[in-house]
Amino acid sequence: MTGKTEKTALTPATHTAPPAKFSHGVRKGNILQVAGQVGFGPAAEGQAPTPVGPGLREQTLQTLANVKAVLEEGGARWEDVVMIRVYLTDTAHFAEFNEIYNEYFADLTEVPAARTTVYVGLPAGLLVEIDALAVLG
Amino acid sequence: MTGKTEKTALTPATHTAPPAKFSHGVRKGNILQVAGQVGFGPAAEGQAPTPVGPGLREQTLQTLANVKAVLEEGGARWEDVVMIRVYLTDTAHFAEFNEIYNEYFADLTEVPAARTTVYVGLPAGLLVEIDALAVLG
Amino acid sequence: MTGKTEKTALTPATHTAPPAKFSHGVRKGNILQVAGQVGFGPAAEGQAPTPVGPGLREQTLQTLANVKAVLEEGGARWEDVVMIRVYLTDTAHFAEFNEIYNEYFADLTEVPAARTTVYVGLPAGLLVEIDALAVLG
Repeated sequence: MTGKTEKTALTPATHTAPPAKFSHGVRKGNILQVAGQVGFGPAAEGQAPTPVGPGLREQTLQTLANVKAVLEEGGARWEDVVMIRVYLTDTAHFAEFNEIYNEYFADLTEVPAARTTVYVGLPAGLLVEIDALAVLG
Repeated sequence: MTGKTEKTALTPATHTAPPAKFSHGVRKGNILQVAGQVGFGPAAEGQAPTPVGPGLREQTLQTLANVKAVLEEGGARWEDVVMIRVYLTDTAHFAEFNEIYNEYFADLTEVPAARTTVYVGLPAGLLVEIDALAVLG
Repeated sequence: MTGKTEKTALTPATHTAPPAKFSHGVRKGNILQVAGQVGFGPAAEGQAPTPVGPGLREQTLQTLANVKAVLEEGGARWEDVVMIRVYLTDTAHFAEFNEIYNEYFADLTEVPAARTTVYVGLPAGLLVEIDALAVLG
């Protein structure tokens, strides 16, 4: 018994393998960090990761589902999340994104997370990327 | 008494309502996360959020004031901040931004926060967005 | 004895002075935040900070070395890092960046950090910027 806090990789069964040496999520002590998630559908053997649709709605909902899967793998819920970082590719998507976001979180009864939204470049075909920081306990 | 740490939304009276289901800031335990702030002036009833000026100086000072208001709402000070994320829209603004930043923090007596500055797209009219992570206690 | 947790600036001897009032890294309690690092070579007196090379490989390796120096200044190792944020300037660099990243972390025996990679603007000559969040203990 060393008293050292263990660091755990969070790897939902639905997720494709990361394209490099990083984890989809990590929990250490009461801190849980979800890596940047995109709208890839569930992993299918022998198939490269593919976005679920060309549209913002499908990709956003899948991205949020992917974030949630990592949270749950680490024993957390959306209610534990303190910060959500949203990366969009087009400022024209902001209003529609917020509509989808609000629908998704309609049943959230506790305090919503803080959020930062900025507009960046993403690999071809991807319209949104989201990561999240949770504090448990 | 459950031992559960409460998560609190930080909503300064001066702030306009967030455009979606997120909080301007959240505190949970000793972690305080400020959402991305921009140069919107104080909330005025029946008026859409508006940047305080077209220039970098006005917007930066207002943005920093908005971050500070969220920190204070959560019982924190600039001295508690460990990370400041700065989003600018133009690399040509870096030198002027740093001047304004240094003036603003001239009286900070303790260790300044770490910082990352990158250049992204922001909604029309906005030149700067800033968020911050504080550790209290 | 106040029970207050001290906030410490992390300033490796190899690092050039930050261009504004921020720290290369900060540790407070068990949280260590590394500021955005770029591919500047070791500080040389009377010389402006200069990237080590025009190529992605040299800059990435130097950037990772700079992050590591800050971690070590705060008593942390890569194994303590829960999140690495990668800012690239060109989506065409993703595959090569991942190769370099995997080589660099080949000997990492513990769980790798979570990661978010987005594509932003950076000052002329810089191809990559990286920051990191570590949880110690």
